[in-house]
Amino acid sequence: MRIAIDAMGGDHAPDVVVAGALEAVREWKDTTVILIGDKARIEPLVRQAGDQPSNLEIVHASEVIEADDEPVKAVRRKKDASMVIAGRMVQERTADAMISAGNTGALMTTGLLIVGRIEGIDRPALTLTIPSMDGKGMVALDMGANMDASPEQLVQYAIMGSIYRKKVHGVVSPRVGLLNVGTEALKGNELTKAAYPLLKEAPIHFVGNVESRDLLSGPCDVLVCDGFAGNIMLKSLEGAAATIFTALRTEFTRNLLTKLAAAVLKPGLTKFRRQLDYTEYGAAPLLGINGMVLKSHGSSNATAIKNAIRQARISIQSDVLATIKSEINNGNK
Amino acid sequence: MRIAIDAMGGDHAPDVVVAGALEAVREWKDTTVILIGDKARIEPLVRQAGDQPSNLEIVHASEVIEADDEPVKAVRRKKDASMVIAGRMVQERTADAMISAGNTGALMTTGLLIVGRIEGIDRPALTLTIPSMDGKGMVALDMGANMDASPEQLVQYAIMGSIYRKKVHGVVSPRVGLLNVGTEALKGNELTKAAYPLLKEAPIHFVGNVESRDLLSGPCDVLVCDGFAGNIMLKSLEGAAATIFTALRTEFTRNLLTKLAAAVLKPGLTKFRRQLDYTEYGAAPLLGINGMVLKSHGSSNATAIKNAIRQARISIQSDVLATIKSEINNGNK
Repeated sequence: MRIAIDAMGGDHAPDVVVAGALEAVREWKDTTVILIGDKARIEPLVRQAGDQPSNLEIVHASEVIEADDEPVKAVRRKKDASMVIAGRMVQERTADAMISAGNTGALMTTGLLIVGRIEGIDRPALTLTIPSMDGKGMVALDMGANMDASPEQLVQYAIMGSIYRKKVHGVVSPRVGLLNVGTEALKGNELTKAAYPLLKEAPIHFVGNVESRDLLSGPCDVLVCDGFAGNIMLKSLEGAAATIFTALRTEFTRNLLTKLAAAVLKPGLTKFRRQLDYTEYGAAPLLGINGMVLKSHGSSNATAIKNAIRQARISIQSDVLATIKSEINNGNK
Repeated sequence: MRIAIDAMGGDHAPDVVVAGALEAVREWKDTTVILIGDKARIEPLVRQAGDQPSNLEIVHASEVIEADDEPVKAVRRKKDASMVIAGRMVQERTADAMISAGNTGALMTTGLLIVGRIEGIDRPALTLTIPSMDGKGMVALDMGANMDASPEQLVQYAIMGSIYRKKVHGVVSPRVGLLNVGTEALKGNELTKAAYPLLKEAPIHFVGNVESRDLLSGPCDVLVCDGFAGNIMLKSLEGAAATIFTALRTEFTRNLLTKLAAAVLKPGLTKFRRQLDYTEYGAAPLLGINGMVLKSHGSSNATAIKNAIRQARISIQSDVLATIKSEINNGNK
């Protein structure tokens, strides 16, 4: 299988992207990784690491979409940008998946305008695996691809998220929860109240409303919400965790005694902190796009890039895309 | 001034309500507290504590609205419920404010149906002071009185929240932020995009969009959002904090060495945890109701009840209600 990767996307590109790709092609001989970007910068990095593996290709791109570029304008104008070329390869089926750690908005635009939507899907959804205390995590969508959603779109999210959870994470009958302000059926805003009965009828294992207070204990396997609420929820969790860990650090370094005490506790706390670290949970696929398009975290290191490639491999092998297409078409019959 | 309090509302009623009221009337001789509820249960509690203070009154109520009562039905049918009687006293101006730690939905219904709205206000907003790391907190509304909101309603929330922040917390020119998924002006869903220009024109100190990731660092003095997003945000923050502190406790009690280390760190951590504790931040007024109606946390202890009475006193003294009325009427001229 062939996986295209935007070598110029992310805070530490192209260095970490090249490093991650090299690790991946060494481990998975059945996988060809195509690094797309400035050859003059990529080739020396590959050479430094030894001979170029036969399952690593480099495709030159003369342009780069920057983090602060306006998404739609950038994708339309920069036709030779690394991200756009990767999208085109997926569209033309010369790659089975693409990965980028670059501008999220531009990647969504690339998905929509270059790769295109799956027929029957109104809007693609950014699908993130949120950590939970039981270590199993939770597939949450939409995390911000579309700010507003209709009840019918939430149902599509639920179907796509269930397939992804089943195919990629191996959960047999994923429990789908609806992000809401209470667990009772009648709770919520106009959107969730209208979505609830539709989700009950949908070909998924719907377990009802889920409160954001309980998310980290893993009350469901797939969480659906509109992109605005999802983004607010996600950043609230992240913000609270960051604030608390910063305050802990202050307490721990207050004096010699607290420093000694902190040293004793550190191994356990580091493990726990890692468990809650969103960046460790891999790339976020844009489900609903007619091809596998994965967003890797902007601050990805080489390991995160390699993990994104692993995720892309599993998605391709387990035929996530074809399954979504056939389930959506079944529903529309 | 006269403050009516639902003696039967909350997890530990009537005991803690009576205890809190007694503390309040002893400290503030200019304030009469009216305990409303089952006389047969309230009177013995008052007697136990000594002679009944002259500024403490007891009004009998034969009914109670329970935590799981359906709000509208309960308020309509239980005409002699302690909460409903308190609302009626505010409506008839025989009390200047009312407080309840009971059923939140029923209290909002009491506000709307018994006390009534301020003319010119479409919807009242549940207004909570959220803790922040700088210790100043942030007045956030709506935290769930109305799940959906219009752009114009967000402007009303901003005006009411600013007045409350100014009058009750003494902040001269409160910075108003709009809860959003990014800080740029064009970010957000249909609602926030439509509200942004209106907030810019409103007679408030609007500082733009605020991300939920940054909330705990106190980026604004007043935060506005619809009740659904506000509730999701609030419960995400609470959930993350609770999960992390639970995990810390597990780490701290792992073995003798970690227990010793934890003992060293405990004073600092306890102080920090209290700083983030929502229940310490007092009662939540329902702004937009034509009378002061305050919700105290369901798990309130006597100190929290006394603090709610303090907040009601300041709100009455600083004329929050009349100021909101006149500002809203100015805007409608």
